[in-house]
Parts: sequence; structure tokens; C-alpha cells
Amino acid sequence: MSQPSTKVTRIAEKQSTSLSQLEELLDSTPLATIALVRDGHPLIFPTGMARIGDELVIHGSTGSPWMRDVAAGVPVAIAVTTLDGVLVARSGFESSFQFHSAVIFGAFEPIPAEDKVRYLETLTDTFIPGRVAELRASSKKELAATLALRLRISESSWSLKIGDGWSEDPDEDIAAGAWAGIVPLTTVYGEPQRSPDCDESIPVPESVLGMRGELTNRRKE
Amino acid sequence: MSQPSTKVTRIAEKQSTSLSQLEELLDSTPLATIALVRDGHPLIFPTGMARIGDELVIHGSTGSPWMRDVAAGVPVAIAVTTLDGVLVARSGFESSFQFHSAVIFGAFEPIPAEDKVRYLETLTDTFIPGRVAELRASSKKELAATLALRLRISESSWSLKIGDGWSEDPDEDIAAGAWAGIVPLTTVYGEPQRSPDCDESIPVPESVLGMRGELTNRRKE
Repeated sequence: MSQPSTKVTRIAEKQSTSLSQLEELLDSTPLATIALVRDGHPLIFPTGMARIGDELVIHGSTGSPWMRDVAAGVPVAIAVTTLDGVLVARSGFESSFQFHSAVIFGAFEPIPAEDKVRYLETLTDTFIPGRVAELRASSKKELAATLALRLRISESSWSLKIGDGWSEDPDEDIAAGAWAGIVPLTTVYGEPQRSPDCDESIPVPESVLGMRGELTNRRKE
Repeated sequence: MSQPSTKVTRIAEKQSTSLSQLEELLDSTPLATIALVRDGHPLIFPTGMARIGDELVIHGSTGSPWMRDVAAGVPVAIAVTTLDGVLVARSGFESSFQFHSAVIFGAFEPIPAEDKVRYLETLTDTFIPGRVAELRASSKKELAATLALRLRISESSWSLKIGDGWSEDPDEDIAAGAWAGIVPLTTVYGEPQRSPDCDESIPVPESVLGMRGELTNRRKE
């Protein structure tokens, strides 16, 4: 079976073939949604994800059936999406969202044992920049219980669709005088909240203090 | 072929069987990610979605190949996910996200022609509450170009997983004195921006003025 086509069939002018724009999207949200086929049926799973160089990296429990399927190299389709705003047009028909949407087709492979610590630490530092330096090392038991998987983006097929324009209303709708514009959507960090089992005397660490403003999963290098 | 199991195999205590919690999640984000199988391969598509009563409703172009597959009733798996916070634990291993994650298995069906206007208007009013009253009616041409599909939630199988707890660190990690807590994540509306082709004299409408604070796609009834 051949790979599914990555040609955007609808509204082709929204398609981008820019790898740097793809990387920018992958770095702007930690959430990937992964589809696979089991017994002919579609399955779907959300998971944390980070781009590390030209690889897409995920991790999970060795006890997770779907992670084991993915580790075995079954074909996957991965969606990474951000909603960037509500596009308010002069008709319901033209109203929409501003968005970035990537779909990546390929297969993951397990990360070799000797690289696992490095990848897992980079994942942690992507989600919580600077955290690894504040933590003990992972134990052998923890490492053994964790599947870490990677997919080389350059060897995969992918498509990127970006909707970042204004509404495109017909002249008669513009003339009729309805308002048009966008309402931006942003995902932001809130005030850190201390665990009930964390003593008040323990200061909020630098890593957590650094998580402010807009979410991106880009680690500070 | 039987439907995939909806039993959560990992960390089963995070599974919820509450329909009202499922509805709350579906109402808290307009984004659904839909997986289907074509030629044995997984395909995946993000799309706008609204819950209307006990139905999940999506719409798209009659020119979209994947929408046509979905309209034909192919089995789909739908993921609806919110990331609610970064769970900062005392080890990389225990660090994670707070999240709500629903997976729904089923098949969509086209909305009958006589109900299409009502469903499409409800979609618009879900994404932009109150907007329909400010707009002209959809034209016959627009309606003909739009596929509107629904899936009855009660007839589908679904699973809901909620991660909303604190980190569960082993006693020795707590004793070692690292900070633990969460950093909340919230998606918020920004200041409305007027389209360049929208005259300054046209006031920002009530619907748009109402889109403030936190994102939910719950229409105001």
C-alpha cells in the first residue's frame, strides 16, 4: 500500500511546504494526536510530543497497548493543530477559525537504550524548560518502564495548512455593512499552584518561574 | 469487525464514565480530531465541532474528500482533548500534563436537508455566540456547498480520561525537597481585530464583544 497523499485537496492556497513553518508549529504546542489502524478500525490517541532536531519524539508506558503498537512500527497519522483565532466573517458560510494544522504520516521507532536518557531529559526540558537540572536522575526502573519513540520528520510525508488570513467576503456582503475581523485565541500559563504535599518553605523553582505568558514547548537552549 | 474497546487500559482510575463530564469537555473546545481508515492506512483531520444536544456535529465542504468519506458513514475515531496544565512533579518520570481526553467511536450521518439550516446556525452560534441574529441568512448556494454531519453520542462508544490530580511522588522524592505543583494552561480570547476591509465606522457587534476571557464553545442560550 502506498502512503496517503499529502496534497491538500481543499483550499490549496493555504498549504505550506515550509519545513521551518512546520517546525514552528511542532514547537508551539506539546499536544499531538495520533491515529493508527487496528483490526481495520481507526484508533486515536492524544499524547505529549516534542520536536528534537528533525525528529518527533513521544514517550509513554511500556504497559500501554497503543504505545506498543506504535513502537512496533505500525503506520501512523499524526495531527498537530493550533487554533489561533475565531474568524468572524460577514456570513456564517465564510466564518471559520485561524489555525495551524500539520498532518504527518510515517512510523515511529524505539529510541536506542543508550540514547534514552538524553531524549527523555530533552522531553522534560521541552515541557518544563530547565527542569532536568533541578531533578534527580531517572532510576533504572523508571527508564525500563518508559517507551521512548522517534519519527524522523524528513523521512516522513507531511502536509501543513495555515489559515491566517482575514475573511474573504463577497463584495455585496462587505457593502451590506456587517462587521468582520478576528478574535485571537492564545493558550497561556497561569499562576503556579503548589501541591498540597509540598512544604511552603520550598521555593518555586526557576524552571516553573520561567513558565509565563504564552505556551510554547520550545525549551530554552 | 467489532468496535474497538473503550476500556482505558492504563491508569484506569483516571477513567470517567460520566456523560455530563463528557459533554462538559465537548463544550469546552471547538476542536475535534477525526481518524478514519482509507486503503488500510490511518488518516487524520482536525475540524471544528459542536455538541448539539446528544449529537456531535461537524460541517465542511462538499468538495472535501475526507468529509465525503465521513458522510458515507465510514467508522471514525474522534479525539477531543484539552491540556489544562503542566504537572510539575519531583521527577521527570512523574511529570505530566493535566488534561481532559475523550475518544468517541462511531459513524456520522448527513443531517437531513430540512434540518440543515437549524444545525448550521447552531454551529455558528456555538463558535460565535449570538452571531446568527446579526447575519443575513445562508444562501441556497452556500447550503448546497456545505456538508453537515452528526453522530449520536448515546449510540456511540466513548471513553473519557481526566487527569486533574496532583503529582504522586514516592515518599523519598517528597522528602528530598523538590518543589511540586501545577502550572495551569488556559486558552483565552484576545482583543478583536477588525478586517482591513471593514470600515472603521462599523461598530464591533455584541457577539464579538461577548467573546472575552476563557474559550468555551458553549453558546449562550
